[in-house]
Amino acid sequence: MSVLDKFAARDHVALAKIITAVEDRRDGYQDLLAQLYSRSGTAWRIGITGPPGAGKSTLVFRLAELLARLGKTLGIIAVDPTSPFTGGALLGDRIRMQELSTNPNIFIRSMATRGSTGGLAEATRDTTLVLDAFGMEVILIETVGVGQVELDIARACDSVVVVFVPESGDAVQAMKAGLMEIADVFCLNKADREGAERLIVELRSVLGLRKKTTPWEHPIVSTQAVNNKGITELWVAIARHHEYRQSRAPLNHLREKRIADDLQTIIKNKVDRCTQAALDASDLYRRKITEIAEGRTNPYAAATALLQELADTLADK
Amino acid sequence: MSVLDKFAARDHVALAKIITAVEDRRDGYQDLLAQLYSRSGTAWRIGITGPPGAGKSTLVFRLAELLARLGKTLGIIAVDPTSPFTGGALLGDRIRMQELSTNPNIFIRSMATRGSTGGLAEATRDTTLVLDAFGMEVILIETVGVGQVELDIARACDSVVVVFVPESGDAVQAMKAGLMEIADVFCLNKADREGAERLIVELRSVLGLRKKTTPWEHPIVSTQAVNNKGITELWVAIARHHEYRQSRAPLNHLREKRIADDLQTIIKNKVDRCTQAALDASDLYRRKITEIAEGRTNPYAAATALLQELADTLADK
Repeated sequence: MSVLDKFAARDHVALAKIITAVEDRRDGYQDLLAQLYSRSGTAWRIGITGPPGAGKSTLVFRLAELLARLGKTLGIIAVDPTSPFTGGALLGDRIRMQELSTNPNIFIRSMATRGSTGGLAEATRDTTLVLDAFGMEVILIETVGVGQVELDIARACDSVVVVFVPESGDAVQAMKAGLMEIADVFCLNKADREGAERLIVELRSVLGLRKKTTPWEHPIVSTQAVNNKGITELWVAIARHHEYRQSRAPLNHLREKRIADDLQTIIKNKVDRCTQAALDASDLYRRKITEIAEGRTNPYAAATALLQELADTLADK
Repeated sequence: MSVLDKFAARDHVALAKIITAVEDRRDGYQDLLAQLYSRSGTAWRIGITGPPGAGKSTLVFRLAELLARLGKTLGIIAVDPTSPFTGGALLGDRIRMQELSTNPNIFIRSMATRGSTGGLAEATRDTTLVLDAFGMEVILIETVGVGQVELDIARACDSVVVVFVPESGDAVQAMKAGLMEIADVFCLNKADREGAERLIVELRSVLGLRKKTTPWEHPIVSTQAVNNKGITELWVAIARHHEYRQSRAPLNHLREKRIADDLQTIIKNKVDRCTQAALDASDLYRRKITEIAEGRTNPYAAATALLQELADTLADK
């Protein structure tokens, strides 16, 4: 039985192997992705994002427990390097995660080792595709909602939960700068702590001030993930958003949007790699650096000349 | 007197106008940058990065006060959307920042309004160039050290200070994932709080475990920015790194490295914009989306066809 046959038979070891092959860009990984693409498109991608320390991992863990009880199959992708899913947290958390990972309906994958070395968004996207093609009904993607790449990852999800805590008065500030626009559901975690009520009022007022572009009313769900409180309510809110989303756009419309997004990303990544390879091999590039250092030209003029060379290289391929 | 003449005469209003023109990509902004480039290359770019809530802004504020007393000219670029420099914080902080900004040797610029909408790294780089050409001796760049773009911005600096606090036991975890590699100087802020000693021990042991690739011994400086304690010591540590860096590589070597970096970034940004414009105008692109949706092709095969079209478009320019 080939790895792909085992994959089709929903074997988790085969799934892990294929994700690794894709992440490492082994020979033929593009053909593999191309094959898998036709089987994908049915998973519901849920982004869980928010500032560090908001308890996102515990929330994801609780949601996963609930979904497992509901009989759903799910993949978890942890992009946050401080997440316990990545081994970066308390021993107790790690043990619970391990228990979760033995559930035959759940598959957990960490992207943390990539750190800041680039390719994080691409790796996350490829892994999502593989999990989707594997037949996972739900994919939970945990990202720390601060950086641009992380926001982009969340933005590519079907439903986005933004998590914050009473302590992070700053959270609402941060939200103004990016999290706010991508949130579908707000989750106030650690809601038993002081300041929770005030923060909800503040958030509601910020939400109220926004120019409404859709009829979706952003729910704010209070949770205590550690005590397993509010998790069902959170899930109901997410599920409501799913229904809303499908009621707003025909399914084929949503699918075309996703395809356009995938296609653009693949092209841009290819172009990036071609550009880097072309520069590495270019004598003109090295010559221009010397000329700029000697004040004989500037990087903007040099870029124009190099772009011409690059186009010729690409066209020759 | 033209804006550029006023700029050359060190007029802050002209400086602000030119930064805005560049940020907004007004007509001729590339010629402007090209002109300014030849005047740049002398500023010392210091990145101040670390998790949200570490007190980076107060540190930058205190460092700026110190540098002003030392007679240095400096630019401050705040990339952190929660920074008080961007108006996102307590009133008291904002008032102090405003006092600072009236100092004729100091110019403050916030990148916060860009939020997550892209182009943050490019805008930061261009603004750094303008401040450098203006003759600022020091440029302090405050970024929240979590996302990939933010780490890239810090990585482009000459000296990087990573700030953490006793509360963030997670900080050391996060550092492992990215901050650690880019740090030249560590700053433990709020060092009067519980857990400071333990965290320093922990950090030293993590540092000790690392394979050393340079003779630079990373200093760990304890500060209490709010009480103005440890700021001089922090500055001495940063200045030592500056000396170390120059002793390790001939100045022209450092300059060529920076030019190569600038040139690559300019080219990649141009290529990105061309790619987007070409896709937006491409009939083939729209046709391929339909074909993928109908299962007649996949995005990887479609990307190859579109890349060919793109190369032809570029070559025709």
